[in-house]
Amino acid sequence: MTADKPGLSYADSGVNIAAADAFIERIQAAVRGTHGGRVIPATDAFAGLVRPGLEGLQEPLLAACCDGVGTKLLVAMMAQSYRGLGQDLVAMNVNDLLPVGARPLLFLDYIATGKLEAQVLAEIVEGAAAACRESGCVLLGGETAEMPGLYAPGHFDLAGFAVGVVDRAHVPIPESIHAGDVLVALPSSGVHSNGFSLARAALFERGGLDVHHVPEGWPQDLGATLLTPTRLYVRPVLRLMSQVEVKAGAHITGGGLLGRLLKMARPHLALQVDPASYKRPPIFDLIQRCGEVSDQEMARTFNMGLGYVAVISPAAAAALEAHNPDGWLRVGSFVKHSGNPRVDLGYASGEVST
Amino acid sequence: MTADKPGLSYADSGVNIAAADAFIERIQAAVRGTHGGRVIPATDAFAGLVRPGLEGLQEPLLAACCDGVGTKLLVAMMAQSYRGLGQDLVAMNVNDLLPVGARPLLFLDYIATGKLEAQVLAEIVEGAAAACRESGCVLLGGETAEMPGLYAPGHFDLAGFAVGVVDRAHVPIPESIHAGDVLVALPSSGVHSNGFSLARAALFERGGLDVHHVPEGWPQDLGATLLTPTRLYVRPVLRLMSQVEVKAGAHITGGGLLGRLLKMARPHLALQVDPASYKRPPIFDLIQRCGEVSDQEMARTFNMGLGYVAVISPAAAAALEAHNPDGWLRVGSFVKHSGNPRVDLGYASGEVST
Repeated sequence: MTADKPGLSYADSGVNIAAADAFIERIQAAVRGTHGGRVIPATDAFAGLVRPGLEGLQEPLLAACCDGVGTKLLVAMMAQSYRGLGQDLVAMNVNDLLPVGARPLLFLDYIATGKLEAQVLAEIVEGAAAACRESGCVLLGGETAEMPGLYAPGHFDLAGFAVGVVDRAHVPIPESIHAGDVLVALPSSGVHSNGFSLARAALFERGGLDVHHVPEGWPQDLGATLLTPTRLYVRPVLRLMSQVEVKAGAHITGGGLLGRLLKMARPHLALQVDPASYKRPPIFDLIQRCGEVSDQEMARTFNMGLGYVAVISPAAAAALEAHNPDGWLRVGSFVKHSGNPRVDLGYASGEVST
Repeated sequence: MTADKPGLSYADSGVNIAAADAFIERIQAAVRGTHGGRVIPATDAFAGLVRPGLEGLQEPLLAACCDGVGTKLLVAMMAQSYRGLGQDLVAMNVNDLLPVGARPLLFLDYIATGKLEAQVLAEIVEGAAAACRESGCVLLGGETAEMPGLYAPGHFDLAGFAVGVVDRAHVPIPESIHAGDVLVALPSSGVHSNGFSLARAALFERGGLDVHHVPEGWPQDLGATLLTPTRLYVRPVLRLMSQVEVKAGAHITGGGLLGRLLKMARPHLALQVDPASYKRPPIFDLIQRCGEVSDQEMARTFNMGLGYVAVISPAAAAALEAHNPDGWLRVGSFVKHSGNPRVDLGYASGEVST
């Protein structure tokens, strides 16, 4: 080795172990704040250990899922606003555990980047930790991968993984849905984390807008509107399930409101949703106008204002109306129907061919 | 809407739902082959449900971890050879569960890409499914995200997530390591999935080689050598743990052989490894020569030929030598030492400042 051509080191090749260690140091407090006495300290292991809390369960099952935040990332990069992405990542996963009745137990995050921007990534992990706390879930660990050559400068990707616990007897049974059953729902906070490729194409390419544009009468710009974090549904859905029997639930994500409701369609039944029963956030009208997107395509892509839906009996709906601290909306019902199982949203509809 | 400027659809914006559905259809058989009666069918839910198999455990704990395959991806893209990446992804995760004594239960994968190349991704998922079967682990689900605008054409990223189960009484206790205890190890199959940024810089930039180069006397080209899948250690390590008490274990990944062994260093002890006790695969010599990499940096980055190590008592080592179907190598031992805890590999060494 000579001074003008020193031997290669791992740092030369673009991976900075010291910066990674400093990043890990910074996020420790937020991560530990989610543990709540359930995590077993393991000496320098790469796997985290947690008590599953299965006491009293007859037949415990584990539920697990995996999701990212899609190209919402690219909007965050345009707006240089990353704070909400941690909650998005947690919400996209823990909300997906709820339809099988599972209580979130643990979450892990995967962050891949070209070059570690500690400030940005720490904000995201801190947001994820806060969302885990709100959801009663341990942020058990994660991986931060620096991959020079795969990600462009300033680019990164996020993936999340969640595990939950449910007693088999409490897994909702969609086969128990009958005519007369009621669809209740909680509002979304906006676009959440799905359909961003279409939203970006409509608003920024077709519409020629940018993230700093403030549509007339709106309280904030397009970037802030689009980046509103995905709502966490864990607390209200667990409360609903403790209050009444839930026959089916759906987190409204890929496939949009129509696509997700079609997965709930049952033989000899039509699901009729009243479009006047909930508010459509104005961002959806703007996307639709800019992109000249059909009603059908909108409903197949976006949540349209409803982020979580559940099916309950009419008696359960009456009980819920009497005590409804989380503001569940009665948005529709199942009715007898002789053709293919169908869903009618008022402005869009679909059928399941049988 | 007019014919020359139709309204936008989700497919126009670069996301092809039909291709994604066809991909999912293709991988179903391989995925189901891992289930082994443990998965509960859940109607159209995004979360998978699995029986944890905790019968007979006194105090069941869950272990979870998350990892990717780093820039090994870029070598696979250069060589256009993707078959081994599925095993890499599974191995990087299930092997990480073993140091805490956990038996892998479930695995999920996250695949992000600019445009879905169904053939490539299906090969990866099929490889992951085979590796899950070999590891007794359910491939419970995953997410395939198409993100035009974030990934360059032909580029993609992979992240994996594994959950395992261990009885608290069976979690190894590194504090029980004493002078005289023995380090046993299993060979690696090559570079595995760590240190690829340094390997690429050394071989391809400094060395001017490419993936098709066949070094003299080698049976295969550099691409095939580098892409040899990461070895799965689940079966032999679980067998070892059922045979003798294991005081500590380490999957040799980030930080290299030296870095990982330093995490095992104990007060008043030095860990001495005999470099003649195991083979150093020739790929490491080529990387070192091309990049003029120091011995120390090599040992801090690569596994150097050992993929998994475990600490056992001398009596356990004798028992293992009498019955050693998996070919564990006796590679070193802990000796009394008055200075800082240290590790000596023969050609490189390190200390833990206390």
